Amino acid sequence: MTATNQGPFLFVANSERGIHMYELKLNALLQTSPQFDDVTATACRERVDQLIKPKGSLGVLESLAVQLSGIQGKLFPEVHQKAVLVMAGDHDIIEEGVATSQKDITTIQAVNMTKGLTGVCALARPAGASVFVYDVGINEDVSETDIIPRKVRWGTGNFYKAEAMSREEAAQCLLVGIEAAFDAQSKGFDLLAVGEMGIGNTTPSAAITAVITHSPANLTTGMGANLPQEQVVHKANIIQAAIDRHLPNPQDALDVLHKVGGCEIGAMAGVMVGGARYGIPVIVDGYIAWAAALLAETLYPGTKRFLIASHKSMEAGAQIAAAYLGMKPYLDLDMRLGEGTGAVMMFHVVESALAMNRHMITFDEANFRVK
Amino acid sequence: MTATNQGPFLFVANSERGIHMYELKLNALLQTSPQFDDVTATACRERVDQLIKPKGSLGVLESLAVQLSGIQGKLFPEVHQKAVLVMAGDHDIIEEGVATSQKDITTIQAVNMTKGLTGVCALARPAGASVFVYDVGINEDVSETDIIPRKVRWGTGNFYKAEAMSREEAAQCLLVGIEAAFDAQSKGFDLLAVGEMGIGNTTPSAAITAVITHSPANLTTGMGANLPQEQVVHKANIIQAAIDRHLPNPQDALDVLHKVGGCEIGAMAGVMVGGARYGIPVIVDGYIAWAAALLAETLYPGTKRFLIASHKSMEAGAQIAAAYLGMKPYLDLDMRLGEGTGAVMMFHVVESALAMNRHMITFDEANFRVK
Repeated sequence: MTATNQGPFLFVANSERGIHMYELKLNALLQTSPQFDDVTATACRERVDQLIKPKGSLGVLESLAVQLSGIQGKLFPEVHQKAVLVMAGDHDIIEEGVATSQKDITTIQAVNMTKGLTGVCALARPAGASVFVYDVGINEDVSETDIIPRKVRWGTGNFYKAEAMSREEAAQCLLVGIEAAFDAQSKGFDLLAVGEMGIGNTTPSAAITAVITHSPANLTTGMGANLPQEQVVHKANIIQAAIDRHLPNPQDALDVLHKVGGCEIGAMAGVMVGGARYGIPVIVDGYIAWAAALLAETLYPGTKRFLIASHKSMEAGAQIAAAYLGMKPYLDLDMRLGEGTGAVMMFHVVESALAMNRHMITFDEANFRVK
Repeated sequence: MTATNQGPFLFVANSERGIHMYELKLNALLQTSPQFDDVTATACRERVDQLIKPKGSLGVLESLAVQLSGIQGKLFPEVHQKAVLVMAGDHDIIEEGVATSQKDITTIQAVNMTKGLTGVCALARPAGASVFVYDVGINEDVSETDIIPRKVRWGTGNFYKAEAMSREEAAQCLLVGIEAAFDAQSKGFDLLAVGEMGIGNTTPSAAITAVITHSPANLTTGMGANLPQEQVVHKANIIQAAIDRHLPNPQDALDVLHKVGGCEIGAMAGVMVGGARYGIPVIVDGYIAWAAALLAETLYPGTKRFLIASHKSMEAGAQIAAAYLGMKPYLDLDMRLGEGTGAVMMFHVVESALAMNRHMITFDEANFRVK
């Protein structure tokens, strides 16, 4: 199945068409390693240590300023425009009774999102952020809506029965995300957050996390959107059975995405990879985003230096994924909506970090000596 | 010792002058109990439960919207202007070797704060908040600066040797804070945060927390601004000895403040009490603010319904104080600067909660039915 709508990153000339055309294109894009400017980051750290405060006393704000300094290659990094890139898709795995919500909520909410009516839109307002919604795998025709059309499949396949998608489709999903990051940068966005809409997508997230972190599925599986406890056990069994059947290779992100992934999760991983490729920081949201981060770091090592954790997901698997990446969420707000709602909250923290870096003065500048 | 500068709340007519004039004034102000509108808060909760998201999935944002609804008595509470009220004072207890910083940093940093150069000022910028700095107990003449003059004492006394201040001075400190909240409201500020500047002030905070929560001082005492571990033990011993000597009555906030408190801590408690008295939400900062919150709730029960927790202080005593009040910090940013820097970060979260409440639509409004 080919994409019904293609951005430039998915365009392939006749001469390039072949069996692995998207995978080849992806590999070509990722020939260059992520460029993190350690020299500037070190200089920023040295200056931050001289600001008028006890050393280290602004904790995460200090490390965020240093991280953005390394990403932008500037002693005083700046953020001018923020965007949440929301990837949407359906999941046939819900046939197995792993979710309580109706399937059509994916489409309804994705459309509501383009109208500014959902959680992530409400929270994006005070953050001054734009929200862009992409169809990567919605199982309905949404071409008449304001959703950006990048459909790779009409729904991710039921991976309990067969593979979630083909390997070429997995590469396509990643390219959709990389292109989205590239497009955002072209439009002047210099801080991104990922979000998602996809009923059933904690199931592939739990599968991806189990595979890449070498954890049993019962540890990575949670309640998603209010699934009763007895069904959580069933959900974990379905996931473990699918992993045991497909045996995805944890070192091969495309293999994992192809066998037990999800279209929008692949695109979110693509946004992160794109962030690392083009030098844009990307804020991770909840569990779905953490699963995407595992894929992204596996596909394009070093991506995690461009990622920023946000809120503590209530799904235990999210903590497993974050810990595997050596990252730690900062906001403990009991949120579990998804959509990018946790990531949006982090925009403020990043901007505060940059304000600290720019507006606090050093001991020398303050002209006072610490005896 | 009387105040060198008095706001209207500290003004006493000749006819009122007497031994307990400030305490009587304070008691008169607090005759009226805090007015929290439970009916409106319940209506807000019912509506929040109907917004297009799984019930409860925006966690703390939901409870904050409901809380502000009860405080403002509006189904759609609003915040128009934010301010950080920073209370400053010195502490003679540092003579006992409980702090590493030089004493004169209190004045230097309080002045830097009026110039917008310190941590809380830098972070207030992206939050769009104003910062006001009050002298409540600075041991220097700062009348030529932009610090708001409300000096109650020239430094809080060394409470290891004698009482921290007189009972009347304790009442005065509280009145300074209540007046500051009232003034802020008069100027249109409808969301407040408390901050502080006072070298040595984790010591009285640990003492207040030990007394009110009935905890041994070694559990409530921490490193403050980078105090080496061996000195932390000494600090705890000093605090415990002072408590054992003065035996403050945990049910009497004035007694605690008078015997082992600090001027700026009393004023911060006053801001919180003022918030509850005049219906303004007040964001708690780190350990010093949590100690103030304990005093405020003891003095004026029900104050805590007007308080909003912010970041997780690195001082263990802050967690003891928060737990005693049944509250929980939300931001885990490894911050320990004080000044109000943690509280400022919470402005964004409160505004996000109000945006959720105002801009998300309900299932009915979305015209879709959940089967």
